[in-house]
Amino acid sequence: MKFKNYSFIFVFVFCFVLTTCAPTQKEELDLGQVRQALEEQNIIYKEAVLQGDASAAAAVYTEDATLMPPDSEIIQGREAIEAFWRTEWTQMRVTDFNLTVEDLYGSGDIVYELGKYTIKVQLEGQEPIEDNGKFLVISKRTADGSWKWHVDIWNSSMPAQ
Amino acid sequence: MKFKNYSFIFVFVFCFVLTTCAPTQKEELDLGQVRQALEEQNIIYKEAVLQGDASAAAAVYTEDATLMPPDSEIIQGREAIEAFWRTEWTQMRVTDFNLTVEDLYGSGDIVYELGKYTIKVQLEGQEPIEDNGKFLVISKRTADGSWKWHVDIWNSSMPAQ
Repeated sequence: MKFKNYSFIFVFVFCFVLTTCAPTQKEELDLGQVRQALEEQNIIYKEAVLQGDASAAAAVYTEDATLMPPDSEIIQGREAIEAFWRTEWTQMRVTDFNLTVEDLYGSGDIVYELGKYTIKVQLEGQEPIEDNGKFLVISKRTADGSWKWHVDIWNSSMPAQ
Repeated sequence: MKFKNYSFIFVFVFCFVLTTCAPTQKEELDLGQVRQALEEQNIIYKEAVLQGDASAAAAVYTEDATLMPPDSEIIQGREAIEAFWRTEWTQMRVTDFNLTVEDLYGSGDIVYELGKYTIKVQLEGQEPIEDNGKFLVISKRTADGSWKWHVDIWNSSMPAQ
C-alpha cells in the first residue's frame, strides 16, 4: 500500500514537470532544411519574374507580407503585392534576373536571407536597362509549416544618377 | 528505510527530467522589453546622425554587421560601417532625421524592425535635400545580452527622378 502511494506522487510530479517544460520547449531550427526550402522558393520567384506572372510571384509571400520597393510607398499584403507586380510587369518585361544568397540565418519562426540581384528589363520602345543591387528578405514559417517571404526590401548598388 | 529509497529514486528521476528538458528549453522572447531596448538604440542612433558622429553610429551595430545603403556596395563589419558614415558625413550635414517603427517582431535571438524615415541633408554650397523612405533593420542579441543592429537596409519612397 505504501508503494502505491509513492508511485502516485511520483507519476504526478513526473507529469507535472513534463507539462511545465513543454510550453517553453522549442524545436531547434534546421537551417539546412530551411535553406533548401527557400532556395526552391527563389527558383519559383525567378521564374515568375521572367514570365511576368504576378500571381505566381505573389504566392511566395505570406498573406500579410510587406513589400518595400525603391521609389514606392510600402505595399501591404499579398493581394496588393500581386497588383503592384502586375502593374510593373505591364510596363516592362524582365529578360534576365538572378538572385545570389550571401547570408542566411534564422531563429524560431523567422529566417532572413541577404544577397545580391542582377536584372535586365526591357521597356517598350526603349533601350534595355540593367541594374544590380542587394536584397534582404525575411521569411516566416506559416501555419502549414511552409516558409513564405514576409518582408522584402532591396536597393540598387549602382551609383546614383 | 523504504521511504528513503523511494525518495532517492524520486529525486533522481525528477533531476533527470529537468536536465533533459533544459537544453531544448528556450526563454520566450520578451518583445516588450526588446522594443524598449531598441527604441533607446534608435534615439542613440538619431543623435549620432545629427551630430555626424560616425563612431557613435557604428556602436549600435554588431561587430560583423551588414550595412546595405542605396547606390553603394554592401558594407561589411562595424569598422567599415564607421568609415562609410565618416566619409558620408564629411560631405554632408544631416539637419533633421526621424525614424518611425511600424512593425517589430522577433524570435530567439533575432528581431526585425521595419518603418519609415525622413531626412534633411545639407551639402556644402547647395540647396538642402529632403528625402523620405523606409527601412528594415535586423537586430541580434549579442553575447553580453544587449541587442545590436545586425543588418540594415533602406530605400527612398520618393518617385525616381
